[in-house]
Amino acid sequence: MHRLRVPQGTRSLLSLQLIGLASFSPSGMASISRALHCPAKCCSVKESGGSNKKSSVAVNGSGSLHGLKAAAAEVAYPLSAVTDKNAAIARQNIPREKQLVDPFRQGVIIDGGVRYRQTVVIRSYEIGPDKTATLETILNLLQETALNHVWMSGLLGDGFGATHGMMRNDLIWVVTRMHVLVDEYPIWGEVVEIDTWVGASGKNGMRRDWLIRSRLTERVFCRATSTWAMMNQETRRLSKMPEEVRDEISPWFIETRAVQEEALKKIDKLDDNAKYVNSDLKPKWSDLDMNHHVNNVKYVRWMLETIPDQFMENHQLSSIILEYRRECDSSDTVQSICEPDEESIPRDNNIRFLTGFSLAPEFLDGSGLLGTFDKWPTRYTHLLQVKGEKKDKEIVRGKTSWKKKMFKFSNCD
Amino acid sequence: MHRLRVPQGTRSLLSLQLIGLASFSPSGMASISRALHCPAKCCSVKESGGSNKKSSVAVNGSGSLHGLKAAAAEVAYPLSAVTDKNAAIARQNIPREKQLVDPFRQGVIIDGGVRYRQTVVIRSYEIGPDKTATLETILNLLQETALNHVWMSGLLGDGFGATHGMMRNDLIWVVTRMHVLVDEYPIWGEVVEIDTWVGASGKNGMRRDWLIRSRLTERVFCRATSTWAMMNQETRRLSKMPEEVRDEISPWFIETRAVQEEALKKIDKLDDNAKYVNSDLKPKWSDLDMNHHVNNVKYVRWMLETIPDQFMENHQLSSIILEYRRECDSSDTVQSICEPDEESIPRDNNIRFLTGFSLAPEFLDGSGLLGTFDKWPTRYTHLLQVKGEKKDKEIVRGKTSWKKKMFKFSNCD
Repeated sequence: MHRLRVPQGTRSLLSLQLIGLASFSPSGMASISRALHCPAKCCSVKESGGSNKKSSVAVNGSGSLHGLKAAAAEVAYPLSAVTDKNAAIARQNIPREKQLVDPFRQGVIIDGGVRYRQTVVIRSYEIGPDKTATLETILNLLQETALNHVWMSGLLGDGFGATHGMMRNDLIWVVTRMHVLVDEYPIWGEVVEIDTWVGASGKNGMRRDWLIRSRLTERVFCRATSTWAMMNQETRRLSKMPEEVRDEISPWFIETRAVQEEALKKIDKLDDNAKYVNSDLKPKWSDLDMNHHVNNVKYVRWMLETIPDQFMENHQLSSIILEYRRECDSSDTVQSICEPDEESIPRDNNIRFLTGFSLAPEFLDGSGLLGTFDKWPTRYTHLLQVKGEKKDKEIVRGKTSWKKKMFKFSNCD
Repeated sequence: MHRLRVPQGTRSLLSLQLIGLASFSPSGMASISRALHCPAKCCSVKESGGSNKKSSVAVNGSGSLHGLKAAAAEVAYPLSAVTDKNAAIARQNIPREKQLVDPFRQGVIIDGGVRYRQTVVIRSYEIGPDKTATLETILNLLQETALNHVWMSGLLGDGFGATHGMMRNDLIWVVTRMHVLVDEYPIWGEVVEIDTWVGASGKNGMRRDWLIRSRLTERVFCRATSTWAMMNQETRRLSKMPEEVRDEISPWFIETRAVQEEALKKIDKLDDNAKYVNSDLKPKWSDLDMNHHVNNVKYVRWMLETIPDQFMENHQLSSIILEYRRECDSSDTVQSICEPDEESIPRDNNIRFLTGFSLAPEFLDGSGLLGTFDKWPTRYTHLLQVKGEKKDKEIVRGKTSWKKKMFKFSNCD
């Protein structure tokens, strides 16, 4: 496992800052703060799978959501106390017990009670210029479903994760690596199913995997895997997994893998002699997440914005690998560096493949196709770093692969 | 009504660029492109409200979503054709007929078949540093629900809106004004209900209103209203509403208002002598929506980022009014200007009000409270403009009101 060291005294927690995902326990085993309490009637569903009238909901015809409404109305709740913290906790209504179904999140626990599945509609504001979900949307939905997995477990405390055993040992989760493969991007309005589950990673680590599928065709759009380690909150060093923690989380582990990876190759470190460099990137207040840290999705945005727009218009990301090195403070100024792999420029024979016949260059140009077949590399190496006085501080290394867009949703305005 | 003129030949459509909302018809009356077709079995629900077995879904206990799954599996769909446009349309599955229930979107048509209601869970990536939904999330959800209202109507064509009568008259919708009031921001994980409907605005305009409510307490978090006009796509001038268009859309109009507005006062125009100025704002590829225009939410982000972070940390927006003037091209460089209303600095007596007793300044400072009670103005005027060689081109004027955060969700990391 990659050894990850962070100097003591850095302001923010590595785990929470490195990636939006770190806002929750990826183990499905978040801590319960005993100070928090659930409102009078939780909508928990018995693990036996038996029907529970309090939470069961019929969505039939126009009667639809009224069942839910009625169930919600049964929860005693003081209207006058909405600015109070306990009232806020009641509004959040985080379950204290494991649930098998959440009708609001459209989530279910499947496969023997460890794997989570959620149905999601791609929203109008989650798509890019070509009407398909953006990579940012994909990453956001991975975060959301992982967190909802923990939510369903009945063990979610305040959203920052860590089991009781981890808390007793002053341990937190840190994400060290993430690999997302996108075969196809879902379209605006499309209904997808997202599965997520966890497994062991070596002796001391944990893996969280995801699959995003079309609900209609069952075609797999996206596969993703991530690796997590435990860090001591005080020493800022990686830690072994204590036995009591292993006992807590291992019942959730399954072997299934979303991504079959070959021997992992470390991503080369770039310097600022690279072809594309964006400097002076500064996080805004609106880029911060609930941990007051720059969100992981912002990192990826900074990475990808360093590639010229002309390339982005005609290509879609098919793979991204992220290797997290250290936290950056929200007051840091970040540099995004990107180097194309010149050997990854595709050969010329795919115009014929696409159209079935060869087209004269002037025709291609006239119909706007030429841009599509520009000689762009399709593999890039990335680095986000903080420029230091003596030494630059790496935040995350990345590697992306791209393919040309073969099909563009027409712009009918 | 405000007279809105846009020079002929500008590249993008005003309506589509001005606001993310403009990606759809706000009338609930989008056009149907006859070239598009629905897949074999649409999940439409009869308007009578009767149960339709194809689309009805039981979400009871662990059986939950399998009903939906089974329904989806009945739709014949060629797996091999996923890169084909018609296949993409099938995947989107836009209904051809009016629906009263959409189980995936958790939406229902209520109040005599004209008002739309959707249940939404606030997601982990939609919240800000204080664990509540951001204003951007609110605006995104207004867009999403308005669009889903049209989606449910069975009249949505390609998402860019306009009734058949409007298309015959070469008319498109433009949003001229928007007013959003937020009493309280929903919390991460909170379940909210969003209602939206349309009404007449003067002789030739349309109004779209929204209400966002807590599903648990029924407390209204947010009220919003917007005004729309019709513009001739060729002349770029505002148009009267043709009779045939009135006949199409007026059956959807209701009188109910989400916001009771007094006589509307035009927002003052700022110049760049204002207190806060951010120049050289450039849209990135990732800021563009499906119309290849800068999304309205990006506008609001640019507006609010001009206010210092120190203010943003301790205040929440309670009202925003936006007056749209003209489009900006995605290649334009934008300037964001902001002027505080110095008369809106609150009096000092609310520390006592909050705590019940007076606190010494050093105590307030030590506990971080002092920043909360800084002497910041609570009203701001905004302008986004494109700097022109001869004349600056206004994009949107804005006015915001803020209140101090009375309750902060603790950061427990």
